[in-house]
Amino acid sequence: MTDDWSSALLTDRYELTMLQGALRSGAAHRRTVFEMFARRLPDQRRYGVVAGTGRFLDALRDFRFDTATLDFLADNEIVDDSTLKWLADYRFSGDIWGYGEGDIYFPGSPILVVEGTFAESVVLETVALSIFNHDSAIASAASRMVTAAGGRPLVEMGSRRTHEMAAVAAARAAYLTGFATTSNLEASRRYGVPTAGTSAHAFILAHDSERHAFAAQLDALGHGTTLLVDTFDVERAVRTAIELAGDDLGGVRLDSGDLAATASRVRALLDRHGATRTRILVTGDLDEYAIQALAIAPVDGYGVGTALVTGSGSPTVSLVYKLVARARSGDADDRLESVAKRSVGKPSKGGRKWAARRRDDRGVATAELVYGYEPEHDPGTRPLLRRLVDGGEIVGAEPLSAARERHERAVAELPEEARRMSAGEAAIPTLFERYVHD
Amino acid sequence: MTDDWSSALLTDRYELTMLQGALRSGAAHRRTVFEMFARRLPDQRRYGVVAGTGRFLDALRDFRFDTATLDFLADNEIVDDSTLKWLADYRFSGDIWGYGEGDIYFPGSPILVVEGTFAESVVLETVALSIFNHDSAIASAASRMVTAAGGRPLVEMGSRRTHEMAAVAAARAAYLTGFATTSNLEASRRYGVPTAGTSAHAFILAHDSERHAFAAQLDALGHGTTLLVDTFDVERAVRTAIELAGDDLGGVRLDSGDLAATASRVRALLDRHGATRTRILVTGDLDEYAIQALAIAPVDGYGVGTALVTGSGSPTVSLVYKLVARARSGDADDRLESVAKRSVGKPSKGGRKWAARRRDDRGVATAELVYGYEPEHDPGTRPLLRRLVDGGEIVGAEPLSAARERHERAVAELPEEARRMSAGEAAIPTLFERYVHD
Repeated sequence: MTDDWSSALLTDRYELTMLQGALRSGAAHRRTVFEMFARRLPDQRRYGVVAGTGRFLDALRDFRFDTATLDFLADNEIVDDSTLKWLADYRFSGDIWGYGEGDIYFPGSPILVVEGTFAESVVLETVALSIFNHDSAIASAASRMVTAAGGRPLVEMGSRRTHEMAAVAAARAAYLTGFATTSNLEASRRYGVPTAGTSAHAFILAHDSERHAFAAQLDALGHGTTLLVDTFDVERAVRTAIELAGDDLGGVRLDSGDLAATASRVRALLDRHGATRTRILVTGDLDEYAIQALAIAPVDGYGVGTALVTGSGSPTVSLVYKLVARARSGDADDRLESVAKRSVGKPSKGGRKWAARRRDDRGVATAELVYGYEPEHDPGTRPLLRRLVDGGEIVGAEPLSAARERHERAVAELPEEARRMSAGEAAIPTLFERYVHD
Repeated sequence: MTDDWSSALLTDRYELTMLQGALRSGAAHRRTVFEMFARRLPDQRRYGVVAGTGRFLDALRDFRFDTATLDFLADNEIVDDSTLKWLADYRFSGDIWGYGEGDIYFPGSPILVVEGTFAESVVLETVALSIFNHDSAIASAASRMVTAAGGRPLVEMGSRRTHEMAAVAAARAAYLTGFATTSNLEASRRYGVPTAGTSAHAFILAHDSERHAFAAQLDALGHGTTLLVDTFDVERAVRTAIELAGDDLGGVRLDSGDLAATASRVRALLDRHGATRTRILVTGDLDEYAIQALAIAPVDGYGVGTALVTGSGSPTVSLVYKLVARARSGDADDRLESVAKRSVGKPSKGGRKWAARRRDDRGVATAELVYGYEPEHDPGTRPLLRRLVDGGEIVGAEPLSAARERHERAVAELPEEARRMSAGEAAIPTLFERYVHD
């Protein structure tokens, strides 16, 4: 966003009224630990993907109550004057640790640990959950699509099926799981995600004939372009495309019909005319299951839209942000007491946590270890929490490519059954290892 | 957004490369008609709700290619110099008609009709679809929740379960269907949606006891506030609340357990202590079915989160934006020819369209009429297309309250079976009335 942007009102009203209550009672200044975690994985999948960390750090940087924001709160009598005064000086001054972006999570994984005063930590709840719930939902679905595609490139093209800003974040989340490109230009400007594109039926229909349209596209974009060949009759369109572009036509796109059967016919036709390098891109309501079903079809790439941006059935991943420990004061050496509610059906495990992934001799993950204390170094485990914010200073920002590489490594480390598309148990168990509160 | 904001890159790359091709061929300057419609309703619901019109007009106003945007396109070689030159001068100069925001739609309803040159109309596709697909998905789910609540107030509180900007739009969409309030502060600042809030378990746990927390909240926010009573033991919490606030306690919130049974017990307890006006707000994974199931419980309001912001199973509504007619030139008097692709399974009906809702003597809707020509005035029908943009000038902007009132009238006009929660047919048939292309 621009320099004027504040993320501070992307917030539930109750975060600020709780702040007012806590300022009144004094609890505002107590040292606390909030933790973000999920009680379950969506749709009985085998693993979830942490995404949104980079965007959360951007939102944290922009989380400040400028004059316009304070005026809004005052005019609408959301909070009282002393709370406004406190908000005017707001800068998060605590510490944040988190799973590396792109890493895998399981039920109970403490993917974000926020340590600061109650006041400075509670007001971050809404924006933190919005970002992680959305981005992790997209990444968790996208990662399975990458697995299903088995090395063939995936194009993210779902912008039109989701909120226009969610689309930008979705393109980023898809890319970090291994998608090759996105159609979304803002995702390229903002995050450097590579873009790709073909053309739409409207382009064909705007011309006097398909031939005119193909000629115009080839003329404007070169022979490396991808022509959409299913507006009228696919085989006739492919013949026209080869007549115009010769055997160096970049690609053709199929968006309808029986994609496997059509791709086979088109591949044979292209090969017969010497266009053996012309790629076949398929699109049209693909999800991870449809992608996998096309594994034996002569397809060179997949465009995924709706299923990607809606998390393939799970548009959110039910991450929560819970107070797990607090001291009686703001003193750094005051003891943190673990706290948890006792609501029916929603158990929480109190206390500050640490986490590591245990691996066997071959480097295959065998368990998610969650500790109630800081564990000793253990060569058989990989520590999962990175320092993101140190005394208010953002220290964990990294290029998107780092998250993309981390994700590839984290998936490779999982046992083979984690990459199955079918519903089932989490790929590895979460063990609350020698957990002090058990 | 701020003055610097441009919505122009919330766009698929292919919109701009198609533009380049069409500028090369000359098709760019042809007069065209694009239409937005849905081929089906989500989840076999009885009707859909048009939402996003106001936000689309804002995005249209901000759709311009400023220097930073053009530099991005040039640096990344998205389009060539002549296309950049054309984009630098871009202002949509055509005409747009649309269903009134908040009105109902059915399969085939032409909810947006864009008439302009191919070039100026095609580049709006992505952002228009993003906005209408998202907002209509939320509004279509929200409207059913309003029906299910039977007059009891609904609070939108799903911000944390969706992308942080989608949350703002979702709060707006929910409000226009009849939700009373939202938790989202930015939706209040930006669109004037009234806000509400209670408190979270973290607030209770940050204090030494529930009693301390309740006292702090009552002290800070007054006795009209709503206390969260299910952190430990509901009945004990209600007794504590009444001890502290007396019989003028505003409300209590239940977020877990068997909500109907708990609400009954809490109501009896409140009444026994004279707190007969204290309201009971229930929250916790509610959707339209859960709301309906609570109809006979002593509940005074519902808070809805996840199900609202994810469209209760349909986070998008598959609206498409299709070229339906074009002339051979840009001349206003050149005849528009209807066009349509012939893809398998995705039939399109070509030609510019008009629409009206037929009503019987009692004012009950009986059919959605879609015409291939401009119909004569007919007192038995209600015309559905409003002028939104006239020669590039935005003329259809209206306050959100107008959409809210229109929605209430449009739902009231539907036959009774439209308000059933069960899956079924569209409430009224769409008739392509004396349609010129049939």
